[in-house]
Amino acid sequence: MLAEIITIGDEILIGQIVDTNSAWMAEKLNQAGIRIKQISSVSDDSEHILAALAEAATRADIILITGGLGPTKDDITKKTLADYFNVGMVLNYAALENVSNIFKKYNRPLLEVNRRQAEVPANCEVIQNKNGTAPGMWFEVDGKIYVSMPGVPFEMKYMVEEEVIPKLQAKFKLPVIIHKTILTAGEGESFLAEKIADIEDSLPAHIKLAYLPKLGQVRLRLSADGDDAALLQTEVDSYAAKIIERVKHAVVAEEDIPLEKAVLNFMAQHGLTLSVAESCTGGFISHLITQHAGSSQVFLGGVVSYSNQLKESVLGVQSETLQLYGAVSGETVKEMVEGAVRNFKSDYAVAVTGIAGPDGGSNEKPVGTVWIAAANANKTVTKKFTFGNKRLQNIERSAVWAFFMLINLLKEVEK
Amino acid sequence: MLAEIITIGDEILIGQIVDTNSAWMAEKLNQAGIRIKQISSVSDDSEHILAALAEAATRADIILITGGLGPTKDDITKKTLADYFNVGMVLNYAALENVSNIFKKYNRPLLEVNRRQAEVPANCEVIQNKNGTAPGMWFEVDGKIYVSMPGVPFEMKYMVEEEVIPKLQAKFKLPVIIHKTILTAGEGESFLAEKIADIEDSLPAHIKLAYLPKLGQVRLRLSADGDDAALLQTEVDSYAAKIIERVKHAVVAEEDIPLEKAVLNFMAQHGLTLSVAESCTGGFISHLITQHAGSSQVFLGGVVSYSNQLKESVLGVQSETLQLYGAVSGETVKEMVEGAVRNFKSDYAVAVTGIAGPDGGSNEKPVGTVWIAAANANKTVTKKFTFGNKRLQNIERSAVWAFFMLINLLKEVEK
Repeated sequence: MLAEIITIGDEILIGQIVDTNSAWMAEKLNQAGIRIKQISSVSDDSEHILAALAEAATRADIILITGGLGPTKDDITKKTLADYFNVGMVLNYAALENVSNIFKKYNRPLLEVNRRQAEVPANCEVIQNKNGTAPGMWFEVDGKIYVSMPGVPFEMKYMVEEEVIPKLQAKFKLPVIIHKTILTAGEGESFLAEKIADIEDSLPAHIKLAYLPKLGQVRLRLSADGDDAALLQTEVDSYAAKIIERVKHAVVAEEDIPLEKAVLNFMAQHGLTLSVAESCTGGFISHLITQHAGSSQVFLGGVVSYSNQLKESVLGVQSETLQLYGAVSGETVKEMVEGAVRNFKSDYAVAVTGIAGPDGGSNEKPVGTVWIAAANANKTVTKKFTFGNKRLQNIERSAVWAFFMLINLLKEVEK
Repeated sequence: MLAEIITIGDEILIGQIVDTNSAWMAEKLNQAGIRIKQISSVSDDSEHILAALAEAATRADIILITGGLGPTKDDITKKTLADYFNVGMVLNYAALENVSNIFKKYNRPLLEVNRRQAEVPANCEVIQNKNGTAPGMWFEVDGKIYVSMPGVPFEMKYMVEEEVIPKLQAKFKLPVIIHKTILTAGEGESFLAEKIADIEDSLPAHIKLAYLPKLGQVRLRLSADGDDAALLQTEVDSYAAKIIERVKHAVVAEEDIPLEKAVLNFMAQHGLTLSVAESCTGGFISHLITQHAGSSQVFLGGVVSYSNQLKESVLGVQSETLQLYGAVSGETVKEMVEGAVRNFKSDYAVAVTGIAGPDGGSNEKPVGTVWIAAANANKTVTKKFTFGNKRLQNIERSAVWAFFMLINLLKEVEK
């Protein structure tokens, strides 16, 4: 079963927002056994939307559309869909009630533009919007399914999970697609490819291997499709086991999770706690950790010690150390990480201090100079990195390496 | 001048990665006066790529392609481009030297798969890759420009900024597109639309207004196109001034910047410093602030006090307060924010404590209960919010409201 995604909105085409909806929908549909053939982003332009709909319908059976359902004048998706299907607009009373209730709840007057949000093309089945005012719309025309949803992510997500996928599953006998991802770190894509070339060559036609590199990490993803989920799972697991055995030293996780989640899982299993002392990463490491539910089991917290004063008062870094060696030094990062273990009473800690840029560098310590440390009560490891001159990239790379260094220290737990 | 973007990669279509390249390229091209007609994401499949190229060429003059240039077997873009143009592959010696140098630098053996990265279709002009091994390719065929670039963001970005846009500017006389964005907060899209309906109706055909809502904020974006940059700027500024006057109470910034950047700019102008005490936002507020260059002028740092122990030891929250009212309470958030101002010696502070979810709620304090505070030495404001049950959304909304509350407190500076 093939689907296409069409996202509508000038804001995407001028680059003002990143389209995160498509990736999310693609993942959910894939899990349900529906492959995405193409994702197209088009402008708030009736003719262009009509052309995109017609093209998508030649390639796929299911067309998911997001965006262009707001109350304002630049949003024209609904009228265009009515034109596409050659039908008129009708008022949907359930949708009107939903809009009215939302405005009542916030004590806002119901404006004419909002009332019009309850109008829909005559041939659609309305998907009520529990998180907003714009109704979703489900069309079945000439054997194709079209679903139009709001572009606001949490309105769309609710509809996809609670309404669209169950309806698609009820309607079609869907094929099975099994993915298995191995997260590696510290080795390049071509090194890994060379190491496992013979395994890759031995894969049957219905199993594919993809390499997904990102900032010092490479994800190896096996994808299999067919009818028998259990059989596919066994096949994929068997090839995955061969790959893992071959590049064991680089494997960080045997599932598709972010690096920091691999750290959290390991530490939770071993009953260990973590704290952080972040200077140039500015809270990013803490944020990566705490976005995961249940992180409080492992993570006690930490300090974003942007100023030297906080390094001294909260972490106990010696003012002499800062004066003699500077805030970006092996001596300072060592005192930071040990101060975190001591003051925050955690089993492990990581610390980062560096010059994220674009300014603040010197000849001796150029932009991109970063010191990272990982420690437990008995051992401290520090390392100097020289990254580039892009601020956000330096922050991200520093976080990745902090987790790497922590993982390597944690591996000693198992020895 | 119209362009299209084609991103290639199964990883996009199964939702494993979010395509951030397209938005970035779209923004840069728009600034250069090139409109993006469509963005299409297609699979690592030769036939599909050929079809996408042919379709894009019917709609646009410039086709930018990213992805599918890695050394591994699933990357087939280059061979497909040679087929599309009906040419053979040739070895590019400059590209080979680049690949060899990179492998030398990292003391890695140059593998056959890497050597093949220096092979390109015979009709292309090579764009050397200063940040990686895969060369970019520039094609001019039948009056259309095709540019193929790696999917790794920082490799692609360098090529677009340093090579592609300058070459396009040299080749075409580009029209001018002027955007002006007004950031508002605290009012809904339809309220704003009703308030400025007459201004919107009075806009000439070459100026468009778009509403871009996101988490309690709405961006109002005016876009004008024509030939005379100065004239367009004057026109857009004049309409923007009318809109700003009409909805002044909701305007947070008169340029396209994030909320936290508006805070940073205001505080830097007034020589004020900020610290934070984050519990359920877990470092996200700090990260939003510190991703901006120069934030250290305003931001002293803060604490991610995930555990109660850190709330007490670093912020000086009374253990009785935590016992009597709980960590998620008006009393605790007040002590947190005042502790931050006092201990971190900042002019202002914000604090957040709540239940981000999905677990940890109770009848009295359900998931989504969040207390937020903003304070200076003389005044503390606290407010309780009841958000939903999605962890990341609760974190994001809490951060937005923390900045709102801070802005409102900061506005008193000017009174």
